[in-house]
Amino acid sequence: MDQIVECVPNFSEGRRAEVVDEIVRAMTIAGVKILDREMDADHNRCVITLAGAPGAVEDAAFRGIAAAARLIDLDTHRGEHPRIGATDVVPFVPVRGVTMDDCVAMARRVGERVARELDIPVYLYERAATRPERRDLAYIRRGEYEALKQEIATNPDRAPDFGPKRLGKAGATVIGARQYLIAFNVNLATSDLKIAKEIAAKIREKNGGLKAVKAKGFMLRAKNIAQVSMNLTDYTVTGMLAAFHAVKAEAEQRGVQVLESELIGLVPLEALTQLAAQALLLPKLSADQVIEMKILGE
Amino acid sequence: MDQIVECVPNFSEGRRAEVVDEIVRAMTIAGVKILDREMDADHNRCVITLAGAPGAVEDAAFRGIAAAARLIDLDTHRGEHPRIGATDVVPFVPVRGVTMDDCVAMARRVGERVARELDIPVYLYERAATRPERRDLAYIRRGEYEALKQEIATNPDRAPDFGPKRLGKAGATVIGARQYLIAFNVNLATSDLKIAKEIAAKIREKNGGLKAVKAKGFMLRAKNIAQVSMNLTDYTVTGMLAAFHAVKAEAEQRGVQVLESELIGLVPLEALTQLAAQALLLPKLSADQVIEMKILGE
Repeated sequence: MDQIVECVPNFSEGRRAEVVDEIVRAMTIAGVKILDREMDADHNRCVITLAGAPGAVEDAAFRGIAAAARLIDLDTHRGEHPRIGATDVVPFVPVRGVTMDDCVAMARRVGERVARELDIPVYLYERAATRPERRDLAYIRRGEYEALKQEIATNPDRAPDFGPKRLGKAGATVIGARQYLIAFNVNLATSDLKIAKEIAAKIREKNGGLKAVKAKGFMLRAKNIAQVSMNLTDYTVTGMLAAFHAVKAEAEQRGVQVLESELIGLVPLEALTQLAAQALLLPKLSADQVIEMKILGE
Repeated sequence: MDQIVECVPNFSEGRRAEVVDEIVRAMTIAGVKILDREMDADHNRCVITLAGAPGAVEDAAFRGIAAAARLIDLDTHRGEHPRIGATDVVPFVPVRGVTMDDCVAMARRVGERVARELDIPVYLYERAATRPERRDLAYIRRGEYEALKQEIATNPDRAPDFGPKRLGKAGATVIGARQYLIAFNVNLATSDLKIAKEIAAKIREKNGGLKAVKAKGFMLRAKNIAQVSMNLTDYTVTGMLAAFHAVKAEAEQRGVQVLESELIGLVPLEALTQLAAQALLLPKLSADQVIEMKILGE
Protein backbone atom coordinates (compact mmCIF):
# COMPACT_ATOMS: atom_id res chain seq x y z
CA MET A 1 0.00 0.00 0.00
CA ASP A 2 1.93 3.00 -1.24
CA GLN A 3 -0.76 5.55 -0.29
CA ILE A 4 -2.27 6.00 3.16
CA VAL A 5 -4.86 8.55 4.29
CA GLU A 6 -6.11 8.90 7.83
CA CYS A 7 -9.64 10.02 8.66
CA VAL A 8 -10.89 11.03 12.13
CA PRO A 9 -14.68 11.41 12.03
CA ASN A 10 -16.42 12.76 15.14
CA PHE A 11 -19.97 11.49 15.68
CA SER A 12 -22.53 12.92 18.11
CA GLU A 13 -22.97 9.72 20.12
CA GLY A 14 -20.99 8.98 23.26
CA ARG A 15 -23.47 6.99 25.34
CA ARG A 16 -25.10 4.22 23.29
CA ALA A 17 -22.27 1.77 22.57
CA GLU A 18 -24.46 -0.20 20.16
CA VAL A 19 -24.89 2.88 17.98
CA VAL A 20 -21.13 3.50 17.88
CA ASP A 21 -20.67 -0.22 17.09
CA GLU A 22 -22.99 0.06 14.13
CA ILE A 23 -21.26 3.19 12.78
CA VAL A 24 -17.85 1.52 13.13
CA ARG A 25 -19.19 -1.62 11.45
CA ALA A 26 -20.41 0.47 8.52
CA MET A 27 -16.89 1.90 8.09
CA THR A 28 -15.07 -1.43 8.44
CA ILE A 29 -14.45 -2.26 4.78
CA ALA A 30 -11.56 -3.78 2.83
CA GLY A 31 -8.54 -1.47 2.61
CA VAL A 32 -9.41 0.36 5.84
CA LYS A 33 -8.18 -0.27 9.36
CA ILE A 34 -9.92 1.11 12.45
CA LEU A 35 -7.03 2.42 14.56
CA ASP A 36 -8.82 3.92 17.53
CA ARG A 37 -12.26 4.54 18.99
CA GLU A 38 -13.00 6.89 21.87
CA MET A 39 -16.39 7.52 23.45
CA ASP A 40 -17.16 10.26 25.94
CA ALA A 41 -20.50 10.17 27.73
CA ASP A 42 -20.39 13.76 29.04
CA HIS A 43 -19.54 15.10 25.61
CA ASN A 44 -21.98 12.57 24.15
CA ARG A 45 -19.54 12.18 21.29
CA CYS A 46 -17.22 9.58 19.83
CA VAL A 47 -14.04 9.97 17.80
CA ILE A 48 -13.07 7.15 15.43
CA THR A 49 -9.62 6.99 13.82
CA LEU A 50 -9.31 5.00 10.63
CA ALA A 51 -6.68 4.82 7.93
CA GLY A 52 -5.89 2.98 4.73
CA ALA A 53 -6.01 3.33 0.96
CA PRO A 54 -7.47 6.70 -0.12
CA GLY A 55 -10.42 5.31 -2.11
CA ALA A 56 -11.41 2.92 0.66
CA VAL A 57 -11.10 5.59 3.36
CA GLU A 58 -13.24 7.94 1.30
CA ASP A 59 -15.92 5.28 0.95
CA ALA A 60 -15.72 4.35 4.64
CA ALA A 61 -16.22 8.00 5.64
CA PHE A 62 -19.34 8.22 3.52
CA ARG A 63 -20.71 4.99 5.00
CA GLY A 64 -20.07 6.27 8.54
CA ILE A 65 -21.89 9.53 7.78
CA ALA A 66 -24.83 7.62 6.28
CA ALA A 67 -25.06 5.31 9.31
CA ALA A 68 -24.90 8.22 11.77
CA ALA A 69 -27.66 10.05 9.86
CA ARG A 70 -29.86 6.98 10.28
CA LEU A 71 -29.06 6.43 13.96
CA ILE A 72 -28.63 9.84 15.59
CA ASP A 73 -31.30 12.53 16.07
CA LEU A 74 -29.90 15.99 16.75
CA ASP A 75 -33.30 17.22 17.97
CA THR A 76 -32.91 15.04 21.06
CA HIS A 77 -29.09 14.98 21.33
CA ARG A 78 -27.59 16.70 24.39
CA GLY A 79 -23.90 16.87 25.31
CA GLU A 80 -21.22 19.27 26.53
CA HIS A 81 -19.26 19.31 23.30
CA PRO A 82 -20.34 21.77 20.60
CA ARG A 83 -21.85 20.04 17.53
CA ILE A 84 -23.96 20.76 14.47
CA GLY A 85 -24.49 17.27 13.09
CA ALA A 86 -24.93 13.55 13.69
CA THR A 87 -21.57 13.32 11.95
CA ASP A 88 -20.10 16.53 13.25
CA VAL A 89 -16.68 16.82 11.62
CA VAL A 90 -14.64 14.65 9.24
CA PRO A 91 -11.00 15.57 8.54
CA PHE A 92 -8.90 13.74 5.95
CA VAL A 93 -5.19 13.63 6.78
CA PRO A 94 -2.27 12.74 4.47
CA VAL A 95 -0.01 10.02 5.93
CA ARG A 96 1.99 8.42 3.11
CA GLY A 97 2.29 9.00 -0.64
CA VAL A 98 -0.62 11.48 -0.61
CA THR A 99 -0.59 15.29 -0.77
CA MET A 100 -2.72 17.80 1.10
CA ASP A 101 -4.35 18.63 -2.24
CA ASP A 102 -5.35 14.97 -2.60
CA CYS A 103 -7.03 15.16 0.81
CA VAL A 104 -8.78 18.41 -0.10
CA ALA A 105 -10.13 16.69 -3.22
CA MET A 106 -11.34 13.74 -1.09
CA ALA A 107 -13.14 16.15 1.27
CA ARG A 108 -14.91 17.82 -1.66
CA ARG A 109 -15.94 14.54 -3.26
CA VAL A 110 -17.31 13.12 -0.01
CA GLY A 111 -19.02 16.44 0.77
CA GLU A 112 -20.71 16.53 -2.62
CA ARG A 113 -21.81 12.91 -2.25
CA VAL A 114 -23.16 13.41 1.28
CA ALA A 115 -25.23 16.35 0.04
CA ARG A 116 -26.48 14.51 -3.04
CA GLU A 117 -27.24 11.08 -1.60
CA LEU A 118 -28.11 11.95 2.01
CA ASP A 119 -29.54 15.47 1.59
CA ILE A 120 -27.30 16.79 4.38
CA PRO A 121 -25.73 20.29 4.17
CA VAL A 122 -21.92 20.15 4.16
CA TYR A 123 -19.39 22.85 5.11
CA LEU A 124 -15.77 22.53 3.96
CA TYR A 125 -13.18 23.53 6.59
CA GLU A 126 -9.44 23.90 7.26
CA ARG A 127 -7.38 23.29 4.12
CA ALA A 128 -10.54 22.48 2.14
CA ALA A 129 -12.33 25.72 3.13
CA THR A 130 -13.81 27.83 0.33
CA ARG A 131 -13.89 31.01 2.45
CA PRO A 132 -11.06 32.11 4.77
CA GLU A 133 -13.29 32.29 7.86
CA ARG A 134 -14.38 28.68 7.32
CA ARG A 135 -10.87 27.40 7.95
CA ASP A 136 -11.98 27.69 11.58
CA LEU A 137 -14.23 24.86 12.76
CA ALA A 138 -15.54 26.90 15.72
CA TYR A 139 -16.70 29.63 13.35
CA ILE A 140 -18.70 27.18 11.24
CA ARG A 141 -20.16 25.59 14.36
CA ARG A 142 -21.11 28.85 16.16
CA GLY A 143 -24.45 28.56 17.95
CA GLU A 144 -24.42 24.81 17.21
CA TYR A 145 -27.21 22.81 15.60
CA GLU A 146 -29.95 24.88 17.21
CA ALA A 147 -28.74 28.27 15.90
CA LEU A 148 -27.79 26.90 12.48
CA LYS A 149 -31.28 25.45 12.09
CA GLN A 150 -32.71 28.97 12.44
CA GLU A 151 -30.18 30.77 10.27
CA ILE A 152 -29.19 28.43 7.45
CA ALA A 153 -32.06 29.36 5.12
CA THR A 154 -31.74 33.13 5.40
CA ASN A 155 -28.16 34.03 6.42
CA PRO A 156 -25.84 33.90 3.37
CA ASP A 157 -22.82 33.54 5.71
CA ARG A 158 -24.25 30.18 6.70
CA ALA A 159 -24.96 28.84 3.21
CA PRO A 160 -23.44 25.35 2.97
CA ASP A 161 -20.80 24.44 0.37
CA PHE A 162 -22.96 21.51 -0.73
CA GLY A 163 -26.54 20.46 -0.08
CA PRO A 164 -29.80 22.04 1.03
CA LYS A 165 -30.21 25.24 3.03
CA ARG A 166 -32.19 23.40 5.69
CA LEU A 167 -31.36 20.99 8.49
CA GLY A 168 -32.95 17.61 9.05
CA LYS A 169 -32.48 15.55 12.22
CA ALA A 170 -28.93 14.65 11.08
CA GLY A 171 -27.94 18.33 11.14
CA ALA A 172 -25.00 19.48 9.03
CA THR A 173 -21.52 17.98 8.60
CA VAL A 174 -18.15 19.74 8.43
CA ILE A 175 -15.68 17.99 6.13
CA GLY A 176 -12.12 19.00 5.35
CA ALA A 177 -8.42 18.26 5.20
CA ARG A 178 -5.69 19.00 7.70
CA GLN A 179 -2.19 17.93 8.59
CA TYR A 180 -1.54 15.04 10.92
CA LEU A 181 -1.86 16.22 14.51
CA ILE A 182 0.91 15.08 16.88
CA ALA A 183 0.12 15.15 20.59
CA PHE A 184 3.50 15.64 22.25
CA ASN A 185 4.16 16.44 25.91
CA VAL A 186 7.31 17.40 27.78
CA ASN A 187 7.54 16.68 31.51
CA LEU A 188 9.53 19.08 33.68
CA ALA A 189 11.59 18.36 36.78
CA THR A 190 9.43 20.71 38.82
CA SER A 191 6.14 20.63 40.67
CA ASP A 192 5.61 24.31 39.84
CA LEU A 193 2.66 24.45 37.46
CA LYS A 194 3.28 28.16 36.91
CA ILE A 195 6.52 27.38 35.06
CA ALA A 196 4.78 24.96 32.69
CA LYS A 197 2.06 27.52 32.02
CA GLU A 198 4.64 30.24 31.38
CA ILE A 199 6.55 28.05 28.94
CA ALA A 200 3.35 27.00 27.16
CA ALA A 201 2.30 30.64 26.83
CA LYS A 202 5.72 31.55 25.46
CA ILE A 203 5.94 28.86 22.78
CA ARG A 204 2.36 28.71 21.46
CA GLU A 205 1.66 30.19 18.04
CA LYS A 206 -1.20 32.33 19.34
CA ASN A 207 1.25 34.37 21.40
CA GLY A 208 3.80 34.69 18.61
CA GLY A 209 5.75 31.54 19.48
CA LEU A 210 6.29 28.48 17.31
CA LYS A 211 4.16 28.19 14.17
CA ALA A 212 1.52 25.42 14.23
CA VAL A 213 1.97 24.74 17.95
CA LYS A 214 -0.76 24.79 20.57
CA ALA A 215 0.45 24.44 24.15
CA LYS A 216 -0.91 24.27 27.69
CA GLY A 217 0.62 23.82 31.11
CA PHE A 218 -0.71 20.88 33.13
CA MET A 219 -0.05 19.26 36.47
CA LEU A 220 0.52 15.49 36.55
CA ARG A 221 -0.89 14.90 40.02
CA ALA A 222 0.24 11.29 40.42
CA LYS A 223 3.86 12.17 39.68
CA ASN A 224 3.67 15.70 41.16
CA ILE A 225 5.36 17.20 38.10
CA ALA A 226 4.39 19.95 35.71
CA GLN A 227 3.97 19.22 32.01
CA VAL A 228 3.96 21.28 28.84
CA SER A 229 1.32 19.58 26.71
CA MET A 230 1.44 20.39 23.00
CA ASN A 231 -0.53 19.79 19.84
CA LEU A 232 1.71 20.05 16.80
CA THR A 233 -0.89 20.90 14.16
CA ASP A 234 1.57 20.74 11.25
CA TYR A 235 4.75 18.82 12.01
CA THR A 236 6.17 19.78 8.61
CA VAL A 237 6.25 23.36 9.94
CA THR A 238 7.26 22.69 13.56
CA GLY A 239 8.29 19.13 14.30
CA MET A 240 8.89 17.30 17.56
CA LEU A 241 12.58 18.18 17.74
CA ALA A 242 12.02 21.94 17.40
CA ALA A 243 9.17 21.84 19.92
CA PHE A 244 11.28 19.81 22.37
CA HIS A 245 14.24 22.16 22.07
CA ALA A 246 12.05 25.22 22.56
CA VAL A 247 10.55 23.81 25.77
CA LYS A 248 13.97 22.69 26.98
CA ALA A 249 15.52 26.12 26.37
CA GLU A 250 12.67 27.91 28.13
CA ALA A 251 12.84 25.47 31.05
CA GLU A 252 16.59 25.86 31.41
CA GLN A 253 16.24 29.65 31.41
CA ARG A 254 14.05 29.11 34.46
CA GLY A 255 16.53 26.74 36.09
CA VAL A 256 14.37 23.68 35.40
CA GLN A 257 15.47 20.46 33.70
CA VAL A 258 13.43 18.39 31.26
CA LEU A 259 12.60 14.96 32.66
CA GLU A 260 11.26 13.19 29.58
CA SER A 261 8.76 13.46 26.74
CA GLU A 262 5.58 11.58 25.86
CA LEU A 263 4.10 10.92 22.47
CA ILE A 264 0.36 10.26 22.68
CA GLY A 265 -1.05 7.95 20.02
CA LEU A 266 0.56 7.44 16.64
CA VAL A 267 2.88 9.37 14.33
CA PRO A 268 3.45 9.10 10.61
CA LEU A 269 6.84 7.65 9.67
CA GLU A 270 7.68 10.95 7.98
CA ALA A 271 7.63 12.69 11.38
CA LEU A 272 10.45 10.33 12.45
CA THR A 273 12.49 10.62 9.25
CA GLN A 274 12.13 14.41 9.52
CA LEU A 275 13.38 14.26 13.09
CA ALA A 276 16.32 12.05 12.15
CA ALA A 277 17.15 14.35 9.24
CA GLN A 278 17.19 17.36 11.57
CA ALA A 279 19.06 15.70 14.43
CA LEU A 280 21.76 14.27 12.14
CA LEU A 281 21.93 17.02 9.46
CA LEU A 282 20.83 14.31 7.07
CA PRO A 283 19.09 16.20 4.28
CA LYS A 284 18.28 13.30 2.01
CA LEU A 285 16.72 10.80 4.42
CA SER A 286 13.42 9.45 3.11
CA ALA A 287 10.84 6.97 4.36
CA ASP A 288 11.91 4.69 1.50
CA GLN A 289 15.19 4.10 3.31
CA VAL A 290 13.35 2.31 6.10
CA ILE A 291 13.70 -1.40 5.44
CA GLU A 292 10.20 -2.20 6.68
CA MET A 293 8.76 0.08 3.99
CA LYS A 294 10.66 -1.86 1.33
CA ILE A 295 9.18 -5.11 2.57
CA LEU A 296 5.68 -4.05 3.57
CA GLY A 297 4.97 -0.91 1.65
CA GLU A 298 5.10 -1.96 -1.98
CA MET B 1 4.17 -9.35 8.28
CA ASP B 2 5.07 -8.94 11.94
CA GLN B 3 8.48 -10.61 11.64
CA ILE B 4 11.24 -9.60 9.23
CA VAL B 5 14.73 -11.08 8.86
CA GLU B 6 17.37 -9.79 6.50
CA CYS B 7 19.95 -12.04 4.88
CA VAL B 8 23.05 -10.88 2.97
CA PRO B 9 24.64 -13.88 1.24
CA ASN B 10 27.99 -13.33 -0.52
CA PHE B 11 28.62 -15.58 -3.53
CA SER B 12 31.93 -16.10 -5.30
CA GLU B 13 30.75 -14.89 -8.70
CA GLY B 14 31.14 -11.31 -9.85
CA ARG B 15 31.67 -11.69 -13.60
CA ARG B 16 29.05 -14.01 -15.11
CA ALA B 17 25.77 -12.08 -14.78
CA GLU B 18 23.77 -15.13 -15.89
CA VAL B 19 25.11 -17.12 -12.94
CA VAL B 20 24.15 -14.37 -10.50
CA ASP B 21 20.73 -14.18 -12.18
CA GLU B 22 20.21 -17.89 -11.64
CA ILE B 23 21.21 -17.70 -7.97
CA VAL B 24 18.90 -14.73 -7.42
CA ARG B 25 16.10 -16.55 -9.23
CA ALA B 26 16.56 -19.54 -6.94
CA MET B 27 16.13 -17.25 -3.91
CA THR B 28 13.11 -15.35 -5.27
CA ILE B 29 10.29 -17.13 -3.46
CA ALA B 30 7.03 -16.04 -1.84
CA GLY B 31 7.58 -14.08 1.37
CA VAL B 32 11.01 -12.84 0.31
CA LYS B 33 11.98 -9.57 -1.36
CA ILE B 34 15.34 -9.04 -3.09
CA LEU B 35 16.41 -5.60 -1.86
CA ASP B 36 19.80 -5.21 -3.47
CA ARG B 37 22.31 -6.95 -5.70
CA GLU B 38 25.91 -5.88 -6.17
CA MET B 39 28.48 -7.53 -8.44
CA ASP B 40 32.18 -6.76 -8.46
CA ALA B 41 34.30 -8.18 -11.29
CA ASP B 42 37.68 -7.55 -9.63
CA HIS B 43 36.55 -9.20 -6.42
CA ASN B 44 34.72 -11.79 -8.54
CA ARG B 45 32.00 -11.72 -5.94
CA CYS B 46 28.39 -10.65 -5.56
CA VAL B 47 26.43 -9.55 -2.51
CA ILE B 48 22.66 -10.09 -2.51
CA THR B 49 20.43 -8.47 0.10
CA LEU B 50 17.09 -10.11 0.74
CA ALA B 51 14.53 -9.80 3.49
CA GLY B 52 11.14 -11.10 4.49
CA ALA B 53 9.40 -13.62 6.71
CA PRO B 54 11.92 -15.71 8.70
CA GLY B 55 10.86 -19.12 7.32
CA ALA B 56 10.90 -17.89 3.74
CA VAL B 57 14.28 -16.17 4.14
CA GLU B 58 15.72 -19.32 5.65
CA ASP B 59 14.49 -21.37 2.70
CA ALA B 60 15.70 -18.78 0.18
CA ALA B 61 19.18 -18.82 1.72
CA PHE B 62 19.36 -22.60 1.38
CA ARG B 63 18.21 -22.41 -2.25
CA GLY B 64 20.84 -19.78 -3.04
CA ILE B 65 23.57 -21.92 -1.48
CA ALA B 66 22.40 -24.96 -3.45
CA ALA B 67 22.36 -23.00 -6.73
CA ALA B 68 25.84 -21.56 -6.12
CA ALA B 69 27.21 -25.04 -5.36
CA ARG B 70 25.90 -26.20 -8.72
CA LEU B 71 27.16 -23.18 -10.69
CA ILE B 72 30.48 -22.10 -9.15
CA ASP B 73 33.74 -24.06 -9.09
CA LEU B 74 36.23 -22.86 -6.50
CA ASP B 75 39.06 -24.79 -8.18
CA THR B 76 38.94 -22.32 -11.08
CA HIS B 77 37.63 -19.23 -9.24
CA ARG B 78 40.04 -16.27 -8.99
CA GLY B 79 39.32 -12.87 -7.43
CA GLU B 80 40.80 -10.27 -5.14
CA HIS B 81 38.38 -10.82 -2.29
CA PRO B 82 39.20 -13.59 0.19
CA ARG B 83 36.79 -16.56 -0.04
CA ILE B 84 36.46 -20.19 1.00
CA GLY B 85 33.27 -21.19 -0.79
CA ALA B 86 30.93 -20.81 -3.75
CA THR B 87 28.60 -19.34 -1.15
CA ASP B 88 31.19 -17.67 1.00
CA VAL B 89 29.29 -16.13 3.90
CA VAL B 90 25.61 -15.90 4.89
CA PRO B 91 24.60 -13.65 7.80
CA PHE B 92 21.03 -13.54 9.16
CA VAL B 93 20.05 -10.17 10.62
CA PRO B 94 17.06 -9.34 12.87
CA VAL B 95 14.96 -6.45 11.53
CA ARG B 96 11.50 -6.58 13.10
CA GLY B 97 9.82 -8.82 15.68
CA VAL B 98 12.78 -11.22 15.71
CA THR B 99 15.56 -11.64 18.27
CA MET B 100 19.24 -12.27 17.73
CA ASP B 101 18.67 -15.73 19.22
CA ASP B 102 16.08 -16.41 16.53
CA CYS B 103 18.67 -15.52 13.89
CA VAL B 104 21.29 -17.73 15.56
CA ALA B 105 18.79 -20.59 15.42
CA MET B 106 18.16 -19.92 11.73
CA ALA B 107 21.90 -19.98 11.02
CA ARG B 108 22.24 -23.33 12.76
CA ARG B 109 19.28 -24.88 10.98
CA VAL B 110 20.45 -23.72 7.56
CA GLY B 111 24.01 -24.82 8.36
CA GLU B 112 22.87 -28.27 9.39
CA ARG B 113 20.73 -28.58 6.25
CA VAL B 114 23.50 -27.40 3.91
CA ALA B 115 25.83 -30.02 5.40
CA ARG B 116 23.24 -32.79 5.23
CA GLU B 117 21.68 -32.13 1.83
CA LEU B 118 24.60 -30.57 -0.06
CA ASP B 119 27.57 -32.25 1.69
CA ILE B 120 29.25 -28.85 2.20
CA PRO B 121 31.22 -28.09 5.39
CA VAL B 122 29.72 -25.18 7.36
CA TYR B 123 31.33 -22.87 9.92
CA LEU B 124 29.16 -20.82 12.27
CA TYR B 125 30.38 -17.23 12.85
CA GLU B 126 29.66 -13.99 14.71
CA ARG B 127 26.74 -14.37 17.13
CA ALA B 128 26.22 -17.98 16.01
CA ALA B 129 29.87 -19.00 16.61
CA THR B 130 30.51 -22.10 18.71
CA ARG B 131 34.08 -21.06 19.56
CA PRO B 132 35.13 -17.50 20.51
CA GLU B 133 37.74 -17.24 17.73
CA ARG B 134 35.11 -18.12 15.14
CA ARG B 135 33.21 -14.93 15.81
CA ASP B 136 35.77 -13.47 13.42
CA LEU B 137 35.09 -14.21 9.76
CA ALA B 138 38.71 -13.47 8.75
CA TYR B 139 39.94 -16.11 11.20
CA ILE B 140 37.68 -18.78 9.73
CA ARG B 141 38.67 -17.77 6.20
CA ARG B 142 42.45 -17.62 6.81
CA GLY B 143 44.42 -19.00 3.85
CA GLU B 144 41.16 -19.13 1.85
CA TYR B 145 39.80 -22.13 -0.05
CA GLU B 146 43.25 -23.37 -1.05
CA ALA B 147 44.68 -23.58 2.50
CA LEU B 148 41.45 -24.90 4.00
CA LYS B 149 41.42 -27.70 1.43
CA GLN B 150 44.80 -28.86 2.77
CA GLU B 151 44.07 -28.45 6.46
CA ILE B 152 40.43 -29.32 7.02
CA ALA B 153 40.92 -33.08 7.38
CA THR B 154 43.81 -32.95 9.82
CA ASN B 155 43.74 -29.65 11.75
CA PRO B 156 41.17 -29.82 14.58
CA ASP B 157 41.03 -25.99 14.65
CA ARG B 158 39.52 -26.17 11.18
CA ALA B 159 36.90 -28.83 11.87
CA PRO B 160 33.56 -27.53 10.55
CA ASP B 161 30.50 -27.12 12.80
CA PHE B 162 28.49 -29.22 10.36
CA GLY B 163 29.35 -31.44 7.44
CA PRO B 164 32.36 -33.36 6.11
CA LYS B 165 36.00 -32.66 6.86
CA ARG B 166 36.76 -32.31 3.17
CA LEU B 167 36.13 -29.68 0.50
CA GLY B 168 34.45 -30.24 -2.85
CA LYS B 169 34.43 -27.69 -5.66
CA ALA B 170 31.82 -25.62 -3.74
CA GLY B 171 34.29 -25.15 -0.87
CA ALA B 172 32.93 -24.34 2.61
CA THR B 173 30.31 -21.85 3.72
CA VAL B 174 30.31 -19.54 6.73
CA ILE B 175 26.84 -18.96 8.21
CA GLY B 176 25.88 -16.83 11.17
CA ALA B 177 23.90 -14.04 12.75
CA ARG B 178 24.80 -10.43 13.32
CA GLN B 179 23.18 -7.09 14.01
CA TYR B 180 22.01 -4.83 11.22
CA LEU B 181 24.95 -2.84 9.87
CA ILE B 182 24.35 0.86 9.34
CA ALA B 183 26.68 2.66 6.94
CA PHE B 184 26.70 6.25 8.19
CA ASN B 185 29.04 9.04 7.08
CA VAL B 186 29.60 12.56 8.39
CA ASN B 187 30.99 15.21 6.02
CA LEU B 188 33.24 17.89 7.47
CA ALA B 189 33.60 21.52 6.43
CA THR B 190 37.27 21.00 5.68
CA SER B 191 39.43 19.71 2.86
CA ASP B 192 41.98 18.44 5.39
CA LEU B 193 41.89 14.65 5.19
CA LYS B 194 44.16 14.44 8.24
CA ILE B 195 41.38 15.77 10.46
CA ALA B 196 38.90 13.13 9.24
CA LYS B 197 41.50 10.41 9.80
CA GLU B 198 42.27 11.70 13.30
CA ILE B 199 38.58 11.77 14.23
CA ALA B 200 38.01 8.30 12.78
CA ALA B 201 40.99 6.95 14.76
CA LYS B 202 39.67 8.58 17.92
CA ILE B 203 36.13 7.26 17.75
CA ARG B 204 36.60 3.71 16.43
CA GLU B 205 36.13 0.83 18.86
CA LYS B 206 39.51 -0.69 18.01
CA ASN B 207 41.27 2.31 19.53
CA GLY B 208 39.07 2.43 22.63
CA GLY B 209 36.44 4.75 21.16
CA LEU B 210 32.76 4.02 20.65
CA LYS B 211 31.62 0.41 21.01
CA ALA B 212 30.53 -1.30 17.78
CA VAL B 213 31.85 1.49 15.57
CA LYS B 214 34.31 1.09 12.71
CA ALA B 215 35.53 4.37 11.20
CA LYS B 216 37.81 5.64 8.46
CA GLY B 217 38.74 9.06 7.13
CA PHE B 218 38.08 9.61 3.42
CA MET B 219 38.40 12.41 0.92
CA LEU B 220 35.38 13.23 -1.24
CA ARG B 221 37.33 14.46 -4.27
CA ALA B 222 34.39 15.90 -6.21
CA LYS B 223 33.31 18.09 -3.29
CA ASN B 224 36.86 18.58 -1.92
CA ILE B 225 35.73 17.75 1.61
CA ALA B 226 36.88 15.23 4.18
CA GLN B 227 34.51 12.59 5.47
CA VAL B 228 34.37 10.34 8.52
CA SER B 229 32.90 7.12 7.14
CA MET B 230 31.47 4.74 9.74
CA ASN B 231 30.04 1.26 10.00
CA LEU B 232 27.78 0.96 13.03
CA THR B 233 27.97 -2.77 13.60
CA ASP B 234 25.37 -2.77 16.39
CA TYR B 235 23.15 0.31 16.45
CA THR B 236 21.53 -0.89 19.66
CA VAL B 237 24.92 -0.30 21.31
CA THR B 238 25.99 2.87 19.47
CA GLY B 239 23.31 4.45 17.33
CA MET B 240 23.46 7.17 14.69
CA LEU B 241 22.86 10.01 17.15
CA ALA B 242 25.72 9.03 19.46
CA ALA B 243 28.06 8.51 16.49
CA PHE B 244 27.06 11.87 14.99
CA HIS B 245 27.59 13.72 18.27
CA ALA B 246 30.98 12.08 18.80
CA VAL B 247 32.19 13.14 15.35
CA LYS B 248 30.73 16.63 15.81
CA ALA B 249 32.41 17.10 19.19
CA GLU B 250 35.79 15.92 17.86
CA ALA B 251 35.45 18.14 14.79
CA GLU B 252 34.56 21.19 16.87
CA GLN B 253 37.55 20.59 19.12
CA ARG B 254 39.62 20.94 15.96
CA GLY B 255 37.75 24.09 14.89
CA VAL B 256 35.86 22.27 12.12
CA GLN B 257 32.10 22.30 11.56
CA VAL B 258 29.98 19.37 10.43
CA LEU B 259 28.41 19.94 7.00
CA GLU B 260 25.92 17.09 6.81
CA SER B 261 25.52 13.34 7.18
CA GLU B 262 24.80 10.53 4.74
CA LEU B 263 23.02 7.27 5.34
CA ILE B 264 24.01 4.63 2.79
CA GLY B 265 21.34 2.06 1.98
CA LEU B 266 18.55 1.12 4.34
CA VAL B 267 17.93 1.24 8.08
CA PRO B 268 15.52 -0.72 10.25
CA LEU B 269 12.67 1.38 11.65
CA GLU B 270 13.95 0.64 15.13
CA ALA B 271 17.10 2.65 14.39
CA LEU B 272 14.86 5.68 13.81
CA THR B 273 12.62 5.14 16.82
CA GLN B 274 15.75 4.70 18.93
CA LEU B 275 17.11 7.98 17.58
CA ALA B 276 13.83 9.80 18.24
CA ALA B 277 13.71 8.34 21.75
CA GLN B 278 17.23 9.60 22.45
CA ALA B 279 16.82 13.03 20.84
CA LEU B 280 13.52 13.73 22.62
CA LEU B 281 14.10 11.89 25.92
CA LEU B 282 11.16 9.75 24.87
CA PRO B 283 11.74 6.47 26.67
CA LYS B 284 8.62 4.64 25.60
CA LEU B 285 8.61 5.22 21.84
CA SER B 286 8.11 1.99 19.90
CA ALA B 287 7.84 1.07 16.24
CA ASP B 288 4.18 0.23 16.91
CA GLN B 289 3.49 3.95 17.31
CA VAL B 290 4.31 4.52 13.65
CA ILE B 291 1.01 4.68 11.81
CA GLU B 292 2.37 2.91 8.72
CA MET B 293 3.18 -0.12 10.87
CA LYS B 294 -0.42 -0.24 12.10
CA ILE B 295 -1.66 -0.26 8.52
CA LEU B 296 0.95 -2.36 6.78
CA GLY B 297 2.56 -4.42 9.48
CA GLU B 298 -0.23 -6.56 10.84
